[in-house]
Amino acid sequence: QDLDLASIYVSDAQYNRNIYFDTSPQAVRLYLRYNHWLPQVLLYFFILVDLCLALFEEPSVIPLPTWATMLVELLCLLVFTVRLVHYARVIPRDKFWKDPKNICIIVILTLTLIDMIVYGALKASNCYAVRWSRVLRPLLLVNVTEGRQLRRAFRSIRNALPQILYVFLLFMFSLLIFSLMALKLLGKRGLKTTDGAPYFTNYLGIIFELYVLVTTANSPDVMMPAYNASSVFAIFFILYILVNTYIFMSVFLAVVYNNYKKYLKEEVRQLVRAKRHKMVRAFALLQEQRQEGGEPVVSQASWNQLVRLVQPDISNAHRELLWSVSDDQNQGCIGKVAFVQLADLLNIEVITLKSRPHPLRNMCPSLYLSAPSRLLCRLVQHRAFVIVYDLIILMNAVFIGLDEENPMIANSDFWNWFDTIIVVAALIATIINSAMKSSGGYTSRQILDIVFILRVLRLTRVVDSIKRFRTIINTLIRIGPAILTFGQLIIVVYYIFAMVGMELFKGKVKFYEEGSSDPEKVFCGNPLLKQTAFAHLNYCKNNFNDVVSSFVLLVELTVVNQCSGFAAVTHVSARIFFVLFHIVVVIIIINIFVAFVLEAFFVEYSVGKSDLQTSLERKIEELELAVTQYLEDNLVNAMEYNDQGTSQSAHRKPGLMFKIASKRYKTVDALLQRMFENDLDPEDFAESDESGGNFDNPTFSSV
Amino acid sequence: QDLDLASIYVSDAQYNRNIYFDTSPQAVRLYLRYNHWLPQVLLYFFILVDLCLALFEEPSVIPLPTWATMLVELLCLLVFTVRLVHYARVIPRDKFWKDPKNICIIVILTLTLIDMIVYGALKASNCYAVRWSRVLRPLLLVNVTEGRQLRRAFRSIRNALPQILYVFLLFMFSLLIFSLMALKLLGKRGLKTTDGAPYFTNYLGIIFELYVLVTTANSPDVMMPAYNASSVFAIFFILYILVNTYIFMSVFLAVVYNNYKKYLKEEVRQLVRAKRHKMVRAFALLQEQRQEGGEPVVSQASWNQLVRLVQPDISNAHRELLWSVSDDQNQGCIGKVAFVQLADLLNIEVITLKSRPHPLRNMCPSLYLSAPSRLLCRLVQHRAFVIVYDLIILMNAVFIGLDEENPMIANSDFWNWFDTIIVVAALIATIINSAMKSSGGYTSRQILDIVFILRVLRLTRVVDSIKRFRTIINTLIRIGPAILTFGQLIIVVYYIFAMVGMELFKGKVKFYEEGSSDPEKVFCGNPLLKQTAFAHLNYCKNNFNDVVSSFVLLVELTVVNQCSGFAAVTHVSARIFFVLFHIVVVIIIINIFVAFVLEAFFVEYSVGKSDLQTSLERKIEELELAVTQYLEDNLVNAMEYNDQGTSQSAHRKPGLMFKIASKRYKTVDALLQRMFENDLDPEDFAESDESGGNFDNPTFSSV
Repeated sequence: QDLDLASIYVSDAQYNRNIYFDTSPQAVRLYLRYNHWLPQVLLYFFILVDLCLALFEEPSVIPLPTWATMLVELLCLLVFTVRLVHYARVIPRDKFWKDPKNICIIVILTLTLIDMIVYGALKASNCYAVRWSRVLRPLLLVNVTEGRQLRRAFRSIRNALPQILYVFLLFMFSLLIFSLMALKLLGKRGLKTTDGAPYFTNYLGIIFELYVLVTTANSPDVMMPAYNASSVFAIFFILYILVNTYIFMSVFLAVVYNNYKKYLKEEVRQLVRAKRHKMVRAFALLQEQRQEGGEPVVSQASWNQLVRLVQPDISNAHRELLWSVSDDQNQGCIGKVAFVQLADLLNIEVITLKSRPHPLRNMCPSLYLSAPSRLLCRLVQHRAFVIVYDLIILMNAVFIGLDEENPMIANSDFWNWFDTIIVVAALIATIINSAMKSSGGYTSRQILDIVFILRVLRLTRVVDSIKRFRTIINTLIRIGPAILTFGQLIIVVYYIFAMVGMELFKGKVKFYEEGSSDPEKVFCGNPLLKQTAFAHLNYCKNNFNDVVSSFVLLVELTVVNQCSGFAAVTHVSARIFFVLFHIVVVIIIINIFVAFVLEAFFVEYSVGKSDLQTSLERKIEELELAVTQYLEDNLVNAMEYNDQGTSQSAHRKPGLMFKIASKRYKTVDALLQRMFENDLDPEDFAESDESGGNFDNPTFSSV
Repeated sequence: QDLDLASIYVSDAQYNRNIYFDTSPQAVRLYLRYNHWLPQVLLYFFILVDLCLALFEEPSVIPLPTWATMLVELLCLLVFTVRLVHYARVIPRDKFWKDPKNICIIVILTLTLIDMIVYGALKASNCYAVRWSRVLRPLLLVNVTEGRQLRRAFRSIRNALPQILYVFLLFMFSLLIFSLMALKLLGKRGLKTTDGAPYFTNYLGIIFELYVLVTTANSPDVMMPAYNASSVFAIFFILYILVNTYIFMSVFLAVVYNNYKKYLKEEVRQLVRAKRHKMVRAFALLQEQRQEGGEPVVSQASWNQLVRLVQPDISNAHRELLWSVSDDQNQGCIGKVAFVQLADLLNIEVITLKSRPHPLRNMCPSLYLSAPSRLLCRLVQHRAFVIVYDLIILMNAVFIGLDEENPMIANSDFWNWFDTIIVVAALIATIINSAMKSSGGYTSRQILDIVFILRVLRLTRVVDSIKRFRTIINTLIRIGPAILTFGQLIIVVYYIFAMVGMELFKGKVKFYEEGSSDPEKVFCGNPLLKQTAFAHLNYCKNNFNDVVSSFVLLVELTVVNQCSGFAAVTHVSARIFFVLFHIVVVIIIINIFVAFVLEAFFVEYSVGKSDLQTSLERKIEELELAVTQYLEDNLVNAMEYNDQGTSQSAHRKPGLMFKIASKRYKTVDALLQRMFENDLDPEDFAESDESGGNFDNPTFSSV
């Protein structure tokens, strides 16, 4: 009983779940079910289905009847409700109603239901109806219990907002003053833009143009009429670019970076305290008094049971290793401090290597151990061989690039043969794969494309073999999981803007397929676009006519804020939508993303492995179980060394080795924690003992 | 004698001059002359003249005969030579020849002379000749002794280059792989761009297009043909933008930031050590032994003489204040530690305020002290009055913006009158100013423009009165002087690129004035530009035909790298010039600029005033000479308070007050020093005593 509860606390600490659940046996059983992977996967699946409904709803990519999408949506709502009810039964009632994320979900579900009923009724009576509740859908992603990282990202944005606002107001003030100057300097000169429209005569128009200049989208077009009139006006624009594009945008980054770091650090600090608190509770459940008046301890037996409960798939060797790290003095029991480490230890990925002999050696030892075979082994594993092989891949890549143009190179038979052999494996795999997946959907051309890309991807091998690059690549890979959180963040924001954008702009710009001979094609099916740059540059497919186009367009807008076309087909005020998008996505989210990359890079470059990992590694080395750097120098040597069973540690099977897999982190929290580890108060642990329950984690409160 | 030498050391320490000069009396006299402001100003004037020669040389803004520019350039060369000879006589011969900057100047001067002779000879015989040595001119700015900051910036760039290179190679690798993928995916589909040219069939062309996509200049044009063919291809471009535009560019910023900080910190550390070392030398010259076996000290008398020599314009009160800060215990003499502070103390700007009564009060006390006058004083200085006044300015600004469109508002007489009264002062000043400066060059329209801008600038008053904004504005102002260093850096790089660009592209694109009816105007005078976007968008004035146009164009290229036009009129390989420019200016220099703004912002936001400043302030407060915050609350009260002469400090005249002016810094070095102060080893001073001369400042080495 206690053990079950303790294992839940440890598991919660490991995965940073901050759910305050009832400790009655029934609630604990429900809670275990709530945390099972299956309902979680199902939940995300149904959220995905719910979000993907936009593909089939009006304006749709693949049209489906309204009743079908409505039915699916109802099913989704049902799933979400069930999940919520399950959650309500796990945690005490008062906690449930105090938690804003539950209220959010209830509101979203209610509003969606109302909207569906209203929409259905209006549609049935052939009235105009808008499915406005669709903008609420991505908010589910934020408010489900599993959306911890996402909520944290939103919280740190919300906390940074006041500071950003001050800089933004100052930026707006600068923008307004520059616009006023521009109006006075240029408004009455009767200048014309290339379209023949009056240049800089409308104050609001100037503000917008200068705002867009900050995004660099209309540079240098916006200054050309003035610059053509007199070179002196270039000074005005250069000054503007210096102040607003360079200095203010840097200050935005600085403020976002500063605040993001500050608040995230605070959040992570609370996270760590909550984690330690949970571990202390687990400890309290398992503790026993060895000596009278002594410190309470946890015995190895109950520790083993606990770990087996928390992580059933853990190998015995791995578990023993963790124990020997925790129980440093080999006392057969551990105190509170060592016990609390367990959550972090479990998060370190350890690879158990069994040094098996080569299969050939088992099957045919005389052949494998013969002189030519040994020579081959040495040859293949020699550094020079790797280099030569990399060079061949590199040269091959050059020829892939060149063979398009130069028939002589294309005909050089050797490279074709080389290519053929190398590619065959990938080709076969791909053909089987694609044949199984689609029956006739792919053309042979497309399959070939994929193979070519696979062929090209081998090149990463070359880069990875150069040490200097590897550190940078590792940094990039390590921030990968965290980028997924930003991906979710971006999707939430994009989805909302896409839904609004589709209501505002759907059908205004039409795209005609390549072969179409429709005369309206030259102006994207909208006479208002005649002779505009939008139509001239063939941007017709950049529209809000379905959710896929909308997403692609929003990506384009993130890179460069081009929206003149949409203002032309609707109203000048449509620009507000695009400015708002720029502020939210570029000024806030992209800057946070850049701040995160900067911080992660600095941490990776400056800090070594975290302390806990090092202590684990030290233990592994101490026990002579480490896969040493022999592996890197010469694999054969290392293998021989291990094959001879020279491992001297008595209490472990020889031939079993450990290696810390993760420079990567199992959870994003671990990376965040590491990012701010240096700034975390080292006495925080001692505090968490005393402060007991009164830490103020926003979503977790204790008895 | 010793005092002169000591004052030179102190002055060198104050301004961070690291010149190792001979200590013979003659050399010291020469050195004093060398550091005089007049030759320095003259030197910069002639460098400016030399740089400005580009305005008059072929291709010129204002054509002058070749002999005239040659003559002026010869004069400049002569001045530089004289200055160099002067320098050579100040420092020992072996030091002179070991210093790379002297060698650089000699090489530049020699090459320029050779180039001038060759050019003159070729021109005389009507051959084609290039003034290639013009690219060397801006390097003078770097290599003159006064260009310390600039040299430091270049050194930190040079030191960051290896790291940047690794990331750049990785970036290029990613670019090449993506290009290869693009070639395979899209090359054989027979797609066409909007111009009808084949799309993505040429490998080098793809590499260039994708490189430009990183600068966001050709987004979304570059993806439109593929996207129009199939929405699936958008995934490729989105992936590319994510990896290369966002992640790689952030990593560039991270690496540049990291390295810039690291190396600059090291440089500043050496600077501080050199400064302390110089102060220790000055101390050694002035020290006397008060007691047998005691620490050597400097007496107040010699200290006073020294400070008077170093800063002749310092007021007695200010000097006494500095002494009382240094001589904390009032012993009449100071030790080494306190003496070394002097250089920093002198760099703190202290404003001496004399609390003079109002002139009206002197002239007509009965009127000034009458009840209505006092009421008026209180009224004017009340917070509400300030707010009301600010509001009026703000509303006025709104009407300035609106009166263009709405005739009713334009006719509202009150505002016009208000405006008139407010503006008259500025107007008169401007008219006098412009009438004196130019005789007929300005039209009345232009004068009015300037007045309008002046009128608008009053608005900054409003912003400055809000405290939250003031901190941000202060930060911006404080990094101002340092931005000047970046300005010089940019000018050096721009000048070199402008000179090369002018040789490569001059006359290729012609600009026709607005009124011109030349038929060639529509394609910028170059048939190759017919039907291109370059001509269509009326970019003709973006050319390399003279140095002013080149600079404006380079600014535009910094913002957005648009160069298709120049590749069209010359050769595809012209793109190399633009890619090179992008790498040097955007990837390296702009990133360093952003890094600097970030760092300066963090420092200003997190750190209070520097320690030294605080100690000075503490002293001022202790002596009850501070201009207190009364001023902010209610000026009248404060004035009355002071007028009554309640200052209780006996040893100073009442009514004389000090205030630390600088949150600004007199020198850029001081800001840099402060930026890294927190990381500077606090025991560095003790070290500098012992290590004596063996620190390795690149430009300063001691006996």
